[in-house]
Amino acid sequence: MNDTVNIISNHRSIRKFQSEQLTTEQIHTIIGAAQQASTSSYVMAYTVIGITDETVKARLKEVSGQDYVKENGHFFVFCADLNRIYQQATPEEQKAMQESIESTEQFLVSTVDTALVAQNTVIAAESMGLGTCFIGSLRNNINRVNDILELPDYVVPLFGMAVGYPDENPDKKPRLPIDAVYHENKYNTDYQFQRELIDNFNEELKTYYQTRSNNTRTDTWSEQMVRKYKIANRMDVTPFIKSKNLNKR
Amino acid sequence: MNDTVNIISNHRSIRKFQSEQLTTEQIHTIIGAAQQASTSSYVMAYTVIGITDETVKARLKEVSGQDYVKENGHFFVFCADLNRIYQQATPEEQKAMQESIESTEQFLVSTVDTALVAQNTVIAAESMGLGTCFIGSLRNNINRVNDILELPDYVVPLFGMAVGYPDENPDKKPRLPIDAVYHENKYNTDYQFQRELIDNFNEELKTYYQTRSNNTRTDTWSEQMVRKYKIANRMDVTPFIKSKNLNKR
Repeated sequence: MNDTVNIISNHRSIRKFQSEQLTTEQIHTIIGAAQQASTSSYVMAYTVIGITDETVKARLKEVSGQDYVKENGHFFVFCADLNRIYQQATPEEQKAMQESIESTEQFLVSTVDTALVAQNTVIAAESMGLGTCFIGSLRNNINRVNDILELPDYVVPLFGMAVGYPDENPDKKPRLPIDAVYHENKYNTDYQFQRELIDNFNEELKTYYQTRSNNTRTDTWSEQMVRKYKIANRMDVTPFIKSKNLNKR
Repeated sequence: MNDTVNIISNHRSIRKFQSEQLTTEQIHTIIGAAQQASTSSYVMAYTVIGITDETVKARLKEVSGQDYVKENGHFFVFCADLNRIYQQATPEEQKAMQESIESTEQFLVSTVDTALVAQNTVIAAESMGLGTCFIGSLRNNINRVNDILELPDYVVPLFGMAVGYPDENPDKKPRLPIDAVYHENKYNTDYQFQRELIDNFNEELKTYYQTRSNNTRTDTWSEQMVRKYKIANRMDVTPFIKSKNLNKR
């Protein structure tokens, strides 16, 4: 296993950081590398917003509820952005572009573009001895994040990311067995086989939860998923995205 | 710049591969590493389908129109998958889970989860001397891809990926200047400033297009984007995703 595969394989989310801040040079190295990610038809339909203003950090922390949104070495917000492209056009051309920009296809394209850059950010940062944590909980109040960051139409904040020097060393969290997530030639609908795989995984996870250093618990993955999805959360994300004129058609 | 940052920074999409196929061990190394990507609330809402059957490859190539969907060392299809989670529940629980699973929020979560795994796949593969190319053109006929791969409800094929030993050495394609994609504390709506950045980038790109080894052209990024978005393509992606009962509410 080479060094890079090792870095990818050893990923843990870090939720406690030393106070040392990233330098501008580090941020530019990370984002500059991340930008080289593939992009659908060269659209580069994302904007990353780096948060250095403590007041802004505090506001975002309030939305997320997580201390590490404020206490970190740097904080990024990753936005799907089709506004930049829209701004390239004359008012007449803009009219003609609306049907495409406002489609689900283009919301999907910009979301994937943004996520590819974000994962490059994670791997680049980790290779430099930094830790990272995705902050999906910015979507707890996505309208508020929109206001805090003064986002124009056609821009949606997808998630945040805390980065910094780790001040904890969490255990590596198990993942589903490869046969559960990797199928061959078609989707494997042998649910009896899948059930056995996941039963084994649930057992492995129980052991992990009972033996990990912090925050021991006893539930299985299947239980967690059913409990989580029985409650429909963040249903305001749907009208919010439409209010930004994306995912509308 | 460390080795991993170098790999990320030197990414090029590879569209011509040697005939050598990836070994099962290589595939397992790559997917095993990729799986360690962060996942929203541990949902791991993706399935990767590896294509080894030449008939299936030929069918997917027909959808995409790209030879390298068939001619490569291995081909992956990355699917957003909320079906696995749905299968964990009793019929009664499943009813209660529908509102959440069918929301835009969960379509977004599963799309991001899938893209993070895909980008890890790219970096892991490239660190092993392999090249990769995302295949968004599977969405040229997403209904057909759905049929070819026999996808159940709650599963959407987002994109493919060709992987293999490179048989070409393309130039590195420029990216937008960092100040265009990286803003501080709020979205930068100084469009005069953005315009200057992109004007410079358009000039840089012209030079790149005129001097690159293959496929020289003369248009700017701004022109490409306006031309592309004036035609609304893949509008059938919207009803397709809804037909899989995702992004519905």
